[in-house]
Amino acid sequence: MTDYRRLRVALLGAGAVGSQVAALLRQHADELADRAGARLELVGIAVRDIDATRDVDLPRELFTTDAESLILGADIVIELMGGIEPARAYVLQAINSGADVVTANKALLATHGPEIFDAADQVGAEVYYEAAAAGAIPIIRPLRDSLAGDRVQRIMGIVNGTTNYILDRMDAEGAEFGDVLVDAQRLGYAESDPTADVEGYDAAQKAAILASLAFHTTVPLDAVHREGITGIDKSTMDAARHAGYVIKLLAVCERLDGGSGESISVRVYPALIERDHPLASVHGANNAVFVQAEAAGNLMFYGAGAGGVQTASAVLGDVVSAARRHIAGGVGVGESTLANLPIVAIGRVTTRYQITLEVDDQPGVLATVAGILSDGRVSIATLEQTVAGEEANIARLVIGTHKALEQDLSETVSRLATSGVVERVVSVLRVEGE
Amino acid sequence: MTDYRRLRVALLGAGAVGSQVAALLRQHADELADRAGARLELVGIAVRDIDATRDVDLPRELFTTDAESLILGADIVIELMGGIEPARAYVLQAINSGADVVTANKALLATHGPEIFDAADQVGAEVYYEAAAAGAIPIIRPLRDSLAGDRVQRIMGIVNGTTNYILDRMDAEGAEFGDVLVDAQRLGYAESDPTADVEGYDAAQKAAILASLAFHTTVPLDAVHREGITGIDKSTMDAARHAGYVIKLLAVCERLDGGSGESISVRVYPALIERDHPLASVHGANNAVFVQAEAAGNLMFYGAGAGGVQTASAVLGDVVSAARRHIAGGVGVGESTLANLPIVAIGRVTTRYQITLEVDDQPGVLATVAGILSDGRVSIATLEQTVAGEEANIARLVIGTHKALEQDLSETVSRLATSGVVERVVSVLRVEGE
Repeated sequence: MTDYRRLRVALLGAGAVGSQVAALLRQHADELADRAGARLELVGIAVRDIDATRDVDLPRELFTTDAESLILGADIVIELMGGIEPARAYVLQAINSGADVVTANKALLATHGPEIFDAADQVGAEVYYEAAAAGAIPIIRPLRDSLAGDRVQRIMGIVNGTTNYILDRMDAEGAEFGDVLVDAQRLGYAESDPTADVEGYDAAQKAAILASLAFHTTVPLDAVHREGITGIDKSTMDAARHAGYVIKLLAVCERLDGGSGESISVRVYPALIERDHPLASVHGANNAVFVQAEAAGNLMFYGAGAGGVQTASAVLGDVVSAARRHIAGGVGVGESTLANLPIVAIGRVTTRYQITLEVDDQPGVLATVAGILSDGRVSIATLEQTVAGEEANIARLVIGTHKALEQDLSETVSRLATSGVVERVVSVLRVEGE
Repeated sequence: MTDYRRLRVALLGAGAVGSQVAALLRQHADELADRAGARLELVGIAVRDIDATRDVDLPRELFTTDAESLILGADIVIELMGGIEPARAYVLQAINSGADVVTANKALLATHGPEIFDAADQVGAEVYYEAAAAGAIPIIRPLRDSLAGDRVQRIMGIVNGTTNYILDRMDAEGAEFGDVLVDAQRLGYAESDPTADVEGYDAAQKAAILASLAFHTTVPLDAVHREGITGIDKSTMDAARHAGYVIKLLAVCERLDGGSGESISVRVYPALIERDHPLASVHGANNAVFVQAEAAGNLMFYGAGAGGVQTASAVLGDVVSAARRHIAGGVGVGESTLANLPIVAIGRVTTRYQITLEVDDQPGVLATVAGILSDGRVSIATLEQTVAGEEANIARLVIGTHKALEQDLSETVSRLATSGVVERVVSVLRVEGE
């Protein structure tokens, strides 16, 4: 056996991901040493409660409640505690004491990324976070390295497994949101408080991370437009299916080439995509990131977006990279925010829309609706009129638009709602993926 | 504008990919400098004929026929000539003169990879080859870095665009191989001599590269079992569709856990995969690499497998990585072949099979066929008997097997062929992807 240099690895957190990372570090120690060029010695695991139940069996003497002492003297610190504090303080302590950091903490990076990356730059350390954007799917290295010579135009990501599981079952079974959510909670696909997932907060954090990386721009979390999926009911899903679409919660990061120079848009919302789009066949709790680049064309990265052992794979890949860098020497590649493009508000974004209305079934109504759309600079691409269920005097209009400005669209929908001929705005959904 | 250090970049070859690389290096010079932390100065392009027509306009003074002088003094050498010699000699010269090398040359790496990687290790240089395995699809970094802490169990790749284009059209249109091939040649999807693609030589080179990387094992090209798609006709394609399969040319790299320790298998052949497998929805000339890893689970990487500008994206990503390494300092990460697992012959591989036979439609024939299969240790999973077209005294048997050893299967098929009751072995196809 090769006599490798030892690197001291400190682990913060022993939850679903952390306990798997610890187990794999120990099980595959010899193989990891060959890959990394160094023995990765797990010197301790900082937790709040040493006696808590863990997913895997680990020697009790590895555990400590004293994270700060553990970090001192570590070569690599793996932060898997989640949350902002004390994770932020520990990550900064690790960087300043000369360690490289591996983290899966999307909340931390989406809110304090610039502070952390600046601190790493100051001392030539590196922060690895492959597991923070799409779980086990390798997306950080492709964006940062493989596409470094290209220009990313758009990213469309299914980056939240819980919402994809719910929407996929609603689509496949014609079920209602609430029923599927309860089932997803029972099966462990959704938390007892599902807000972070179903309201799009988790996806928004990942969108901020992906957009920062793809566009070399600092993207604060509050610049990400966010809508969840709680408004998607069975009838909306059925109508989407009927029109050849499927509804997915998408994180869209887009480069806009306007008259006044380049800008970007970062947004999370449920959107219609055509059934033959590669993202439409992402089922269950799987994730996928679809990337459109100027030269490379369309790329897609698909896999498990969550799960303890799956995410542990991404974390360990980062640990091996950090170890190789320790052995090879040299300073880290900093996060580049040299482009720092302006981020536009959602009102300045153009997409296609599908508007579903219930209108009075009377002569002249269609002309009124068409007139309001036209006055609002929203151009009709497709139109379907059907009777709305039981009520014979109510018609349902499904209007597909050409590309329109979000601000124009939303003002137009307001005018439709108060026009006197529209009984109800059933839904307004964006169409993505063309 | 930041005052960056200059790095001298030499380009060998100005074909479809090379001319796009040159154009992008010049067009995006400022952006690339920000990303790389260095100005990437294209100092020359070595070609055989300075006056040849190029895909893009480039200054005549960049061209030279003297590759050796160009390489001297270059910091980064991009080899896009293709073929073995003189590409091999130039790459070795570049490494030995202190340059990092970027290459898209799959033939060179599949035949002389160990020599080239050893030479790079000796001097601490690095060889980048993202574009050699699946065109624009980032697969090298994910395998080498992102999955470095995991254990790859199997790779199934659609890594040849020409054959996927042909098979996809045969599937969609019910067309014959020969007709689609002629059309593919007319449209530029196939070469006038299509042998390298349709006989699987190109896919075999890529399989060798992917397997080397995934299993940390030197995989010589002649250890790759290779079959092409010229034997796939309309009736085979129709039968596959009828049975819920699609036929794809797959590069399969598999880790085998046998009684006598681990080994690997690397093979290229047309195989049946179920229509709901993610690889089944890879259409046209697109490529995709499906990876099964112990911890990460199933991953898929999808995109353009060829094309000048698409492949140029992958090359430029490598150039930026090489430049960052020059700036950061430190030695390169060598190619690890520390595992060097034994590579088994095709006969030792187990898969499922689908065997299509034309047999005499007489009492006792099915018992004879079943007996031969059972004697040969091939277990029947599914069986369908139909009349074979016009001839009333001939029946068609489609037999799906459980997993069987290739050697057992091929001996059994030979015995079936000479059993006296089998008129014709119509096809024998492996089933992959379960």
